[in-house]
Amino acid sequence: MNEDHSNVVVVCHALTGSHHAAGLYEGESKPGWWDGLIGPGKAIDTDKYYVISTNVIGSCFGSTGPMSNERNTQEPYRYKFPVVTIKDMVKAQRILFDRLGIHHVHAIVGGSMGGMQALQFGIHFPKFADKIISLASTYATQPWAIAFNKVAQESILNDPDFENGYYDAEDIHENGLRGMAVGRMAGHISFLSHHSMQEKFGREYKRTDGLYELFGKFQIESYLEYNGRNFTKWFDPLAYLYITKAINIFDLSRGFDSLDEALSKMESEIYLVSFKDDQLFLSDEMKVLADALKEKPIKSDYIEVDSNYGHDAFLVELEKFEDYITKALDE
Amino acid sequence: MNEDHSNVVVVCHALTGSHHAAGLYEGESKPGWWDGLIGPGKAIDTDKYYVISTNVIGSCFGSTGPMSNERNTQEPYRYKFPVVTIKDMVKAQRILFDRLGIHHVHAIVGGSMGGMQALQFGIHFPKFADKIISLASTYATQPWAIAFNKVAQESILNDPDFENGYYDAEDIHENGLRGMAVGRMAGHISFLSHHSMQEKFGREYKRTDGLYELFGKFQIESYLEYNGRNFTKWFDPLAYLYITKAINIFDLSRGFDSLDEALSKMESEIYLVSFKDDQLFLSDEMKVLADALKEKPIKSDYIEVDSNYGHDAFLVELEKFEDYITKALDE
Repeated sequence: MNEDHSNVVVVCHALTGSHHAAGLYEGESKPGWWDGLIGPGKAIDTDKYYVISTNVIGSCFGSTGPMSNERNTQEPYRYKFPVVTIKDMVKAQRILFDRLGIHHVHAIVGGSMGGMQALQFGIHFPKFADKIISLASTYATQPWAIAFNKVAQESILNDPDFENGYYDAEDIHENGLRGMAVGRMAGHISFLSHHSMQEKFGREYKRTDGLYELFGKFQIESYLEYNGRNFTKWFDPLAYLYITKAINIFDLSRGFDSLDEALSKMESEIYLVSFKDDQLFLSDEMKVLADALKEKPIKSDYIEVDSNYGHDAFLVELEKFEDYITKALDE
Repeated sequence: MNEDHSNVVVVCHALTGSHHAAGLYEGESKPGWWDGLIGPGKAIDTDKYYVISTNVIGSCFGSTGPMSNERNTQEPYRYKFPVVTIKDMVKAQRILFDRLGIHHVHAIVGGSMGGMQALQFGIHFPKFADKIISLASTYATQPWAIAFNKVAQESILNDPDFENGYYDAEDIHENGLRGMAVGRMAGHISFLSHHSMQEKFGREYKRTDGLYELFGKFQIESYLEYNGRNFTKWFDPLAYLYITKAINIFDLSRGFDSLDEALSKMESEIYLVSFKDDQLFLSDEMKVLADALKEKPIKSDYIEVDSNYGHDAFLVELEKFEDYITKALDE
């Protein structure tokens, strides 16, 4: 970190991500979720930049969330935890940075819900960052994204082992919550595209049993099952309810008369990246933002990455946008 | 019905449809699912044509399904019911028509799973119909459709009230199966398009409580809930498992070396209708079929309806294709 913190890059994580954005923690076998993008000589070059990633409030990986203990009772908040917004997440991070003596940074970068945070930073703390880079995100969550979250939420609520929110956390994390697994399957549909599903799975089945066995499996089904079940081992159901809620109610124009008025607050340079076949946060949504920003006096830029992978492209097809990130950070 | 049955039109229903395709039954307030298309002076003109629609095997509205009683035990089949295919549905109908003395018909028409049946009729019984009209359908179910069905199936299986398939049918139909409601919500996402969801619901919420209440609702959420819950009152969970399985394993080329070889069997005139923004059975899938049929000696025709409603367009935007149906039937 420079003396004046002028080389700090803040990285914001997505729904089920965490502060573990890159590198390997001791004893872990899986590197951070943007490990291909962050590191020495990579797009977010740690030889040049000092990267900070924090866990959002509401999450289950470090910050205060619904399963954190209330100070008075030393019992988990559960439903006493308030609904949090993307703005709350950003404010909490700002408080942390203040505590660290960091009052201004070079850039804020994030994809999906992380991209929402980056934009929200720009509106709420206009002087905080020189540059804001938002990928695979939107100006306000649209009904299809809310609909996918709804399936996940209802599926969690409907699982008797969820015990209406009063589950035993250890038990759930050990055995998994099947209702959350099912809900996560719906999520995975929204993270891919028709094209990537056809490429990855087609109509292939596991041996032949996808065919005439009622519970035989196509490969797409095994994929959803595996990812769904696996997910419940490492994510908390109440945190999932709270964070999907935060995503659902995300709207940059909240508190302003219009999106346009909200964007007028921005002073950072804004870089927007969308992915052509993203079915969750459509390129069209990012275009709305890009067009509105063109009218503003600040520097802004927008690219649509030619991808047919779907929403997950921001985690997977790094080679398609890493140069853009490098340039945005350096220029 | 003509003496020689030359004016019979067979209408095939979709996943949750039934033989009640048009008109009102005594005491019912809801007309059939294609009432706007079938009737005197309508596209499928009952002044000219004698329309027959039957319930598919596996369903819960008349034909034999998993909750029908086995002959020996007088107990429901449940899992003893075999996996059925679209071809089985078609063969069962053919047996019925033979019993009725109908060995040849004017046309077979259907949308979605009904469109699958219409095509399967054409391959399996090439001399049965002069014309086949298939809407909003495909030549083989693709992974995204299987994925949506997967969420529904898992959600049903995960509901303790499903009792692993040994539920009390009356009880379920009275109280509904919440797991099936959740699964049906996922289905409804696939029936719409981004555009129709934005038009219908946008980010509107119920009063203001979609906003900061954890369980407050956006209108899209209320819509999904209403349709999901309502659905469980009138559809049987095991039937849903069996029919979605039939859809998943549908592949016109099964039993042949290729789709091309399968289509070579066809002798009827084939009319194909797809809907531009159908997210479940894509226009691209219908185009595969249309292109393959062009190489065949039979008459075939294909239109893509300019619609951004999504899959449900075949039930909703009748005015966009009814003239095409009339012409296809009459010419």
